[in-house]
Amino acid sequence: MAEVKKVVKKAAKPKVADPVAATIDKASQQMIRRAQELGIDTCFDRNVTLKPCNIGNQGTCCKNCGMGPCRLPLPKDYDEKNDNRKGICGASANTIAARNFIRMIAGGAAAHSDHGRGVAEVFLSAARKETDAYRIKDTRKLLEIAPHLGVETTVEKDGEVLDRDIDEIALEVGEAAIAEWGKVGGELSYAKRAPEARYEIWKKNGVLPRNIDREIVEIMHRTHIGVDQDYKNLMKQGTRAAIADGWGGSMLATDLQDVLFGTPYPLASEANLGVLKADHVNIVIHGHEPILSEMIVVVAQKPEIVEYAKSKGAKGIQLSGICCTANEILQRHGVPLCGTFLQQELAIITGAVDAMVVDIQCIFQNVANVANCFHTKLITTHPIAKMEQDNAIHIEFDEHHAMEDAEKIVRMAIDNYENRKAEVMIPHQKSPIVAGFGVESIEYHLGGTFRGTYYTLNDNIINGRIRGIAGVVGCNNARVKHNEGHIAVVKELIKNDVIVLTTGCNAIACAMEGLLTPESAAVYCGPGLAEVCETVGIPPVLHLGSCVDNSRILLAATEVVKAGGLGNDISDLPVAGSAPEWMSEKAISIGHYVVTSGIYTVFGAVFPTAGAPVFQRYLFEELEKIYGGMWDFEADPIKHAWKMIDHIDKKRKALGIDKARERVMMDFSDRQALEG
Amino acid sequence: MAEVKKVVKKAAKPKVADPVAATIDKASQQMIRRAQELGIDTCFDRNVTLKPCNIGNQGTCCKNCGMGPCRLPLPKDYDEKNDNRKGICGASANTIAARNFIRMIAGGAAAHSDHGRGVAEVFLSAARKETDAYRIKDTRKLLEIAPHLGVETTVEKDGEVLDRDIDEIALEVGEAAIAEWGKVGGELSYAKRAPEARYEIWKKNGVLPRNIDREIVEIMHRTHIGVDQDYKNLMKQGTRAAIADGWGGSMLATDLQDVLFGTPYPLASEANLGVLKADHVNIVIHGHEPILSEMIVVVAQKPEIVEYAKSKGAKGIQLSGICCTANEILQRHGVPLCGTFLQQELAIITGAVDAMVVDIQCIFQNVANVANCFHTKLITTHPIAKMEQDNAIHIEFDEHHAMEDAEKIVRMAIDNYENRKAEVMIPHQKSPIVAGFGVESIEYHLGGTFRGTYYTLNDNIINGRIRGIAGVVGCNNARVKHNEGHIAVVKELIKNDVIVLTTGCNAIACAMEGLLTPESAAVYCGPGLAEVCETVGIPPVLHLGSCVDNSRILLAATEVVKAGGLGNDISDLPVAGSAPEWMSEKAISIGHYVVTSGIYTVFGAVFPTAGAPVFQRYLFEELEKIYGGMWDFEADPIKHAWKMIDHIDKKRKALGIDKARERVMMDFSDRQALEG
Repeated sequence: MAEVKKVVKKAAKPKVADPVAATIDKASQQMIRRAQELGIDTCFDRNVTLKPCNIGNQGTCCKNCGMGPCRLPLPKDYDEKNDNRKGICGASANTIAARNFIRMIAGGAAAHSDHGRGVAEVFLSAARKETDAYRIKDTRKLLEIAPHLGVETTVEKDGEVLDRDIDEIALEVGEAAIAEWGKVGGELSYAKRAPEARYEIWKKNGVLPRNIDREIVEIMHRTHIGVDQDYKNLMKQGTRAAIADGWGGSMLATDLQDVLFGTPYPLASEANLGVLKADHVNIVIHGHEPILSEMIVVVAQKPEIVEYAKSKGAKGIQLSGICCTANEILQRHGVPLCGTFLQQELAIITGAVDAMVVDIQCIFQNVANVANCFHTKLITTHPIAKMEQDNAIHIEFDEHHAMEDAEKIVRMAIDNYENRKAEVMIPHQKSPIVAGFGVESIEYHLGGTFRGTYYTLNDNIINGRIRGIAGVVGCNNARVKHNEGHIAVVKELIKNDVIVLTTGCNAIACAMEGLLTPESAAVYCGPGLAEVCETVGIPPVLHLGSCVDNSRILLAATEVVKAGGLGNDISDLPVAGSAPEWMSEKAISIGHYVVTSGIYTVFGAVFPTAGAPVFQRYLFEELEKIYGGMWDFEADPIKHAWKMIDHIDKKRKALGIDKARERVMMDFSDRQALEG
Repeated sequence: MAEVKKVVKKAAKPKVADPVAATIDKASQQMIRRAQELGIDTCFDRNVTLKPCNIGNQGTCCKNCGMGPCRLPLPKDYDEKNDNRKGICGASANTIAARNFIRMIAGGAAAHSDHGRGVAEVFLSAARKETDAYRIKDTRKLLEIAPHLGVETTVEKDGEVLDRDIDEIALEVGEAAIAEWGKVGGELSYAKRAPEARYEIWKKNGVLPRNIDREIVEIMHRTHIGVDQDYKNLMKQGTRAAIADGWGGSMLATDLQDVLFGTPYPLASEANLGVLKADHVNIVIHGHEPILSEMIVVVAQKPEIVEYAKSKGAKGIQLSGICCTANEILQRHGVPLCGTFLQQELAIITGAVDAMVVDIQCIFQNVANVANCFHTKLITTHPIAKMEQDNAIHIEFDEHHAMEDAEKIVRMAIDNYENRKAEVMIPHQKSPIVAGFGVESIEYHLGGTFRGTYYTLNDNIINGRIRGIAGVVGCNNARVKHNEGHIAVVKELIKNDVIVLTTGCNAIACAMEGLLTPESAAVYCGPGLAEVCETVGIPPVLHLGSCVDNSRILLAATEVVKAGGLGNDISDLPVAGSAPEWMSEKAISIGHYVVTSGIYTVFGAVFPTAGAPVFQRYLFEELEKIYGGMWDFEADPIKHAWKMIDHIDKKRKALGIDKARERVMMDFSDRQALEG
């Protein structure tokens, strides 16, 4: 305990509120309390000691030049018609809030897309056979995506159609994919995967991305002092970059990861801090890019490595994950979820984590400080994501020696097992889960055998057993009670027969709460949804993966459109989106590509445009006229869920399916009568 | 006056300080006073009524996620060893300040590079002969840049070396240029234009840009919550993007503009608000991209257009410019400078501006409000830069109908001449200038006839007549007294025999002050510099163009290295950089590519890292060990100049030329003796 005690001196000031009350999760509460006893501050403490800037929070603080930051708080006696607030350059509150909003899109789109580019580079290495560690695993998926990138899968020879060589296809797919980031001329190839009506809306409005990088760069230019000062025009560029994320960088990340590592298929696992094992070497993987963690999964299963762990006195190796890297290795390998974004410090506070291995995105810089209070090795692995602190160990991963890097890391964790100094305290909470759904497995589970499409799902929506579909996704946010919004929104939705597709930290929250089991349907669902779930044996909340995998939700929605009977565009569907506890710029980019793909989307926690009501109304109302989808904000989780349900009902009414009914099946003679 | 009076109601609150005292320029003072009398607020008033955020100003406010903004002000009792400040995620003050700093680089590099891309697109249209308005004008420059883009200028046929067809070369140059933004693989082509030693430093440190867009996007990713949290690593990426700006986007913008519109050559003109003419149609061109303004210059000289102006009662058409579009059309056509960045509102307040035509960057949104108080048509022309206000007229420019667009705009201004309602009040101040220097003309004026290089310039540096070279550039900043820093710094430098290369608003400030005339040498220069200037007939302050033309300073420095006798890298030269009144993100990007090209660079006004002393020390001291150049900050203009002079002296000492002496000329027999 010596090492822990020395930190007590660094403890934050006495708390004015109780950080323990800032989560609904018992396991987390136990760890927050322990951290406080040890004098270690976590985000729950910092939430109390560090208040967010109230003006910046409203979205009306501009620091895009050296004359600022210019702050334009919303006055108490705000009068829209006489709003003369302006920055030094004259930028209005609308301009400032729109600038900030689309710079958030730029940050988020850059994060997702750069992740996708990293995967594309490894994919290309694999296709070129420059690496032994990676290979084309899922050829079915490869053949499925190839045509969307303009790569032929067959070749005609002497009048005969022959299958092309898989290696050749892989190489061309890799090259075509990586060109999407910077190509000159043309447009984002995947834009045409959207329903035709959607593609036409984008085209008409001039928001078809030209390539991925350029749209992000143009945001940075347009938000520079003295460039674009019309919030509608600024948002056009935000839209273009967001589409380049959802239908570009993110979708390519998902697709190429599926080809390299296998398309997810439902499998069982567990979630919450209780998955850590006191008598095992615990390696917690945290971040977003599964390139390295896929190798760690392989290495940790090698008999000689397990033996090595045993030689050090451990009973084995327990891998578990935090954030989206967790979701990635869960959905493909069943590796358990250790916790959400807000539990990253808490995992270390168990004293049982021998190594935390981080890659990119959503990693608290404070994990290094917390790790420094225990024996935990904090290992950074990505060239673009290092840490300032001395105890952060950087082992730079490279796909050309991936297995060696992974083995080095795992052995370092094993060697560290015997260094545990603090008492180990692992909360007992963990929940069983079924995860790893995708466009393909939804088709299998919910689709009809007759047509092999989403026909049966559509049928159940039309007949009203399923009222609609919700995508509930996103982060945790230390400013609101951990998991409270996530769980309340999802429970209210499934209670009202809305099936939930989930990714990211919402997926982990639902997992911890036990909502990712088929059995939960009987407990939490309305009768219609419960019947469907029980019939086909699926949970009412379907885990679709990580945050780049929100692209799966876009494609699932597209499949629903294609299956027919529910309109001809995503915006016709009884569908709504939600991020009850968002915090990252990625969430804003996701939200915006979902909105401009035609889906009404509600965010919780805070909304970063409150200081500019005119601009906010543009997002919340006027966007619907252009894209059929719009933003909304609601902090109260029940009202939040009901805004979504009301929207779903509005869409059901427009489709004429507001009164639950069985679909009228047409047989051949009916069709003949119609055609006659 | 009716239209002016109605605005009085909108007047800002009574001022607590005197905005008139915020400029050293008499013409500006007169217009600020007039604006106040009319109840129109300008940036000088807003500087008094709107205080900048003190914490954001220090660089330690992080709003890169929805949990913030987290503010970490520097405590009064700051103790570096016990700095436990952290954001909700644990981000340190260093991390936050570095994130903010490189996001500024991203904004600035995006602005310059997007400008360059726009020019490259027009260049390609011209090369493809898709437009009549634009054509390849300067074939000498085309042939000069082609090899740097990997385009051959000659072809071997039957053992004979033949010149290639110019049209073919232009097409290939255009295609190669535009590929620099997004190419997969390889590195920025122009990086090799730097001295070899410099290129090797970049290569060794892993900061060679891969392409232009990718480096900007990667900044946005690395500064996203939970990615890069090591200020040194963050700065590496900042460096990569800044080099992609200076030696990429900006340099390509300059080069391609020179090929399209002609390489500047010294010419005479005038500067300050007094260039406006009461009896002429006044069109003020403002922004940065000269694509459209080149056409306006052509149209405004057409006899039928001048006749049209006369038919409306005007004696003619007076074009003038603000900001860098002004510098562009000045250096190529002698169009006079109307004013600096801070005079954009004041120009309209003369009541004599019939149209202000804006393109991109540094345009106050408030010009629309001010224009609305007069008859002035405020015309936005670029698809990425519109304005929210109803009175802003958008005439979208397209290179395919450039001349028609330009004519429409000029005719609109002419038609508006008779609508002048307010009394016209044009300050009498204007100064004669000589502008339009460049790498080529410096070679001509200061180079030796013997070798046709920078030999004579080097010789005068070695013999001490010229103590060193300063690049003094950058914006105005409403937070400091307009032009005071610019003028004081430049005067102190030339007084001490340092020749000044200037661009941007510093160039305009020097122009207004009369420093851009050969005659000023006798008045302001030290004896050595005066002798040189008088001998060759140049001003002691050389106008090198707009802010993208800072690339000319990089190439001039490279030419000095090549000419010999002053070391083998830019960092060996007795050279320093300065931006006394910077404000834009572009200035930060420029500053950083200048620093990492090996040049010590001092900024005035404020410095956006004051809240993170450790990080700031990295910029101010440690970077020198890596790049030979480093940042510095000094608000006092005289101390600012002396920091530069001291650095120049340090470099002179290192070169062994600290004692002024004549260069020993070696003749053929001396060389033989050496080689023997």
